[in-house]
Amino acid sequence: MAGKKVLIVYAHQEPKSFNGSLLKIAVEELTKQGCSVTVSDLYAMQFEPRATRNDIVGHLHNSEAFNYAVETWEAFKRGGLSKDLVEEQKKVQEADLLIFQFPLFWFNMPAILKGWMDRVLVRGFAYDSSKVYDSGLLQNKLSLFSFTTGGSKEKYAIRGDIRYLLWPMQHGIMHFCGVKVLEPHICYAPENVSEDKRKEMLTAWTQRLKTLWKEEPIDCSPEWYFK
Amino acid sequence: MAGKKVLIVYAHQEPKSFNGSLLKIAVEELTKQGCSVTVSDLYAMQFEPRATRNDIVGHLHNSEAFNYAVETWEAFKRGGLSKDLVEEQKKVQEADLLIFQFPLFWFNMPAILKGWMDRVLVRGFAYDSSKVYDSGLLQNKLSLFSFTTGGSKEKYAIRGDIRYLLWPMQHGIMHFCGVKVLEPHICYAPENVSEDKRKEMLTAWTQRLKTLWKEEPIDCSPEWYFK
Repeated sequence: MAGKKVLIVYAHQEPKSFNGSLLKIAVEELTKQGCSVTVSDLYAMQFEPRATRNDIVGHLHNSEAFNYAVETWEAFKRGGLSKDLVEEQKKVQEADLLIFQFPLFWFNMPAILKGWMDRVLVRGFAYDSSKVYDSGLLQNKLSLFSFTTGGSKEKYAIRGDIRYLLWPMQHGIMHFCGVKVLEPHICYAPENVSEDKRKEMLTAWTQRLKTLWKEEPIDCSPEWYFK
Repeated sequence: MAGKKVLIVYAHQEPKSFNGSLLKIAVEELTKQGCSVTVSDLYAMQFEPRATRNDIVGHLHNSEAFNYAVETWEAFKRGGLSKDLVEEQKKVQEADLLIFQFPLFWFNMPAILKGWMDRVLVRGFAYDSSKVYDSGLLQNKLSLFSFTTGGSKEKYAIRGDIRYLLWPMQHGIMHFCGVKVLEPHICYAPENVSEDKRKEMLTAWTQRLKTLWKEEPIDCSPEWYFK
């Protein structure tokens, strides 16, 4: 939708990958709609996933025993977070929609993307003591997890619903911060299907993006995941 | 149990933390039992969580388009994985029990530990095409997720069972590789309880470790998580 700001947090090493194609489509389609699109290309940025003392500029609140959650909270309040984090927080702050584009690694997001969550969404910025879930600090934003899998849809179904593994990401992170969640976009096993099927999946993503702004967020209750 | 080999993969920045105390207890108690204990102290090792081309020594199988899963699989087969991965794999191979000790970050393990899973448990080593779940390549091993939380037990209960968030870790990783899973060990909100309560939690961990080898693994079916 014209005027909307979108941040795509992208975690794949290879631009020629299927994830790379999905990213390219999203940038093109959303730009065509008049959105302003920003991409955080985590591998290209060599984004640091480790939560360490380096994230705090200057003195520590308690230098006797390092507590990451406390130190980043204190640093956020006094404007003492490292530059890379401040930049990512600015992008999040400005965005109306966050799209996470990644290959599923071990029923989960790759470590580099998990590190983005761990380091960017600090207390004071994304949530606070009583500012969680519907009162989270990142309200009036949407999020969408768009990912590829190695296994087929049938293989995931044997081991229970794929929604099970969305709980920590969608509910535990986005919903916790007050961000609304759109239906995930899942491309199953793009490496193991025909070229025609791959093209079909890319077209489906383009089509979905065309009507994305009309979608209703999902109900983020346990029932959606485990009904 | 005397003679058993234990690998503790530890993800906390601060030795004086509660996680640090839990680690210390595990090393002392298991050593006292006659176990051989190895610790991978991920932050101290500055363990790399990012899955990149650097994990492959020498030529790539396909240098036109980088595919991490394929490249690490091929590299594993020809002995071409990077030294840090080979060392971690050796520790896993030798271990009878894997203990993961960490603070819960966003309903999940910290990125540095997720990176250990992403990079160490490659195809050919931990699983293969039809060698998954009960046929996974890391059979005859036990695992135990031991973690601390920020929120209280009651707060987690409001948002559904804490077992929900164990699904990707226990089922999606360990069970997938054929590793049996013991009951998780959860210390709720050690930072927000009294000193007495903290001591009680440390004692409970020592006590559990004393009878650990007599425990039956959990049934890793969806029912255990979502009943």
